[in-house]
Amino acid sequence: MARHLNLYKLNNFTMRHGAVLDGATLAYETWGELNEKKDNAILILTGLSADSHAASHDESDLDGWWEYMLGVGKAIDTSKWFVICVSSLGSCKGSTGPCSPEPITKQPYKFTFPDLTLEDIANSSFEVVQALGIKQLACVVGPSMGGMSALALILQHPKATKHMINIAAGCYSEPFSTAIRSLQREAILNDVNFQNGNYSSEQWPTQGMKQARKIGMLSYRSAQEWKERFPRSLRQRPNKPFGIEFPVESYLEYHAEKFVHQFDPVSYIYLSRAMDWFDAFDFHHIDLHNPFEKVQMDSALVIGAKTDFLFPPEQQKEIATLFNQKVCPTELKITNSIQGHDAFLVDKSNYSALVKKYLAKIASI
Amino acid sequence: MARHLNLYKLNNFTMRHGAVLDGATLAYETWGELNEKKDNAILILTGLSADSHAASHDESDLDGWWEYMLGVGKAIDTSKWFVICVSSLGSCKGSTGPCSPEPITKQPYKFTFPDLTLEDIANSSFEVVQALGIKQLACVVGPSMGGMSALALILQHPKATKHMINIAAGCYSEPFSTAIRSLQREAILNDVNFQNGNYSSEQWPTQGMKQARKIGMLSYRSAQEWKERFPRSLRQRPNKPFGIEFPVESYLEYHAEKFVHQFDPVSYIYLSRAMDWFDAFDFHHIDLHNPFEKVQMDSALVIGAKTDFLFPPEQQKEIATLFNQKVCPTELKITNSIQGHDAFLVDKSNYSALVKKYLAKIASI
Repeated sequence: MARHLNLYKLNNFTMRHGAVLDGATLAYETWGELNEKKDNAILILTGLSADSHAASHDESDLDGWWEYMLGVGKAIDTSKWFVICVSSLGSCKGSTGPCSPEPITKQPYKFTFPDLTLEDIANSSFEVVQALGIKQLACVVGPSMGGMSALALILQHPKATKHMINIAAGCYSEPFSTAIRSLQREAILNDVNFQNGNYSSEQWPTQGMKQARKIGMLSYRSAQEWKERFPRSLRQRPNKPFGIEFPVESYLEYHAEKFVHQFDPVSYIYLSRAMDWFDAFDFHHIDLHNPFEKVQMDSALVIGAKTDFLFPPEQQKEIATLFNQKVCPTELKITNSIQGHDAFLVDKSNYSALVKKYLAKIASI
Repeated sequence: MARHLNLYKLNNFTMRHGAVLDGATLAYETWGELNEKKDNAILILTGLSADSHAASHDESDLDGWWEYMLGVGKAIDTSKWFVICVSSLGSCKGSTGPCSPEPITKQPYKFTFPDLTLEDIANSSFEVVQALGIKQLACVVGPSMGGMSALALILQHPKATKHMINIAAGCYSEPFSTAIRSLQREAILNDVNFQNGNYSSEQWPTQGMKQARKIGMLSYRSAQEWKERFPRSLRQRPNKPFGIEFPVESYLEYHAEKFVHQFDPVSYIYLSRAMDWFDAFDFHHIDLHNPFEKVQMDSALVIGAKTDFLFPPEQQKEIATLFNQKVCPTELKITNSIQGHDAFLVDKSNYSALVKKYLAKIASI
């Protein structure tokens, strides 16, 4: 286990669809110090393929997936804030998921892993927060799937946090995004090596995972960025009929190859489906038009990118409008980033500035 | 053979990359009558999966793929115009292509079919036009791949047509569109039944073709249309783990099933690659900035849809700007259709009106 990885044991964790997970663990990392009042905690809920390693802990440590955002003096300044990032339940990065051993049989759960929802990810992550002695977060920060999980968190724990930064997410998955994810899942399920989840490291559903990643890449970036990035002149002769020829094909191939063993296929489809299942309006509410009726928060920041077509800006506008009308003062920032859905990972200066400014504001309240 | 299908034999047809096709035939259909001056001919160049059957010929005939556009009294009025539609060379709808028998071995060409380009499709279609005694078309009409083929036609035969209606196309494929098509080709090539092209009707690359069609569907419509079409409430319980559950999944499955045996897999990837190869600026020109330097045309109409992200409106603007500056007076119409790339097939009233008005104008010149 990595030096800075902590484990939290969930006891008889009841999942949204009714199953009870026994002996499940969550892997998490923290940065900074919890103050005496325990009111300086920030929880980061992650995107689908990210893990608890959002940033390095010291100079000898590996960079994290949000390295630019998190650290001493950075936008999420760990000299001020105590930051927690949990590897999602159901993922394959240290927390219990479909490839973990089932307690009785000791065999990997695979498809016997119970239905996984974002509510489960949010709930279980909040148990970690509470176990650290924190009653209320200063802020929850969620990009992409993490943004939906953040909504799932406050729907279930209306006083969980005073503030929220919700990035590149929505109150639900639109059919277009569901279609993309459905094709990704299908590519994995259809791989001859998938074998209903009983693949081995020698017989890995490589093609399905690569195809899934490539379909994902289509939706993570933007046509505009690729046009600037891949000049038509860079075409190469393929080494076989219909082999790689266009620069964008090499790019997709490179990223697909890199991803293929970084993620467990069954875990991937569980998390992917959880995103499609999520619907803030689908929770059992008194007020159908305002699922957030019970939520008590002081403020929120909602960020989207103009070029994001997986979670288009209309979805962030919907969150912000609803929050402003029914929950708390909420800022909406739609960036001009050309990197599409991935802008929060890539457009460092814009996203740093927005997060830094907002956190400075809430720190001074 | 269908009653209205005609065959034209190409003699030793030299393809752009140098190969010579011997004894190839093109299937085509015509509507209306060629007038004495032979100046009322319209050539329709088709999209990737379409064939020569653009419309029915009489009441007992099957509807064509552009039924609403073409016929007596319709936008392309066959009581005035003599209309020709050719099944593309390389396709599998009556014209010679990779699944046709190679003349010597009598076995299907498959991967021995020579490199196919849109220039070959345009050139061979124009041979049919010339064989009908037509020296110059009144108008060439090309939607999608057909729009690129129309550009390929005038690049090679600068006096081929007086007018052009270019719909949902571009001067080249952008990397994003190439990525989509690359993933479609890969899905087919990776199907275990594909067998390097040696599949049989019993062992058909069904999964690959379905996946390719579904990826295509993503790019043919728009997120906006799907959002209106598939209410989140229509979710059904799947009949197996990760089976069809979301309404958009049923929709994709339905269209994929319908498509899977309608098109030959090798033909599909040949045509798909031809679209990615096409680049009007890549032709050997004197003026690098104006590939259309030699083209002599009187006018053009370029149509795009705001929601098309396979051939985004910027690409139609580019054609129109270039034509207005260097070729001939050109109208640009970007519709508000919500059906994306497929709008020309679906948004009947808008596209009928635009085409009708333009053809009335050129008829009166």
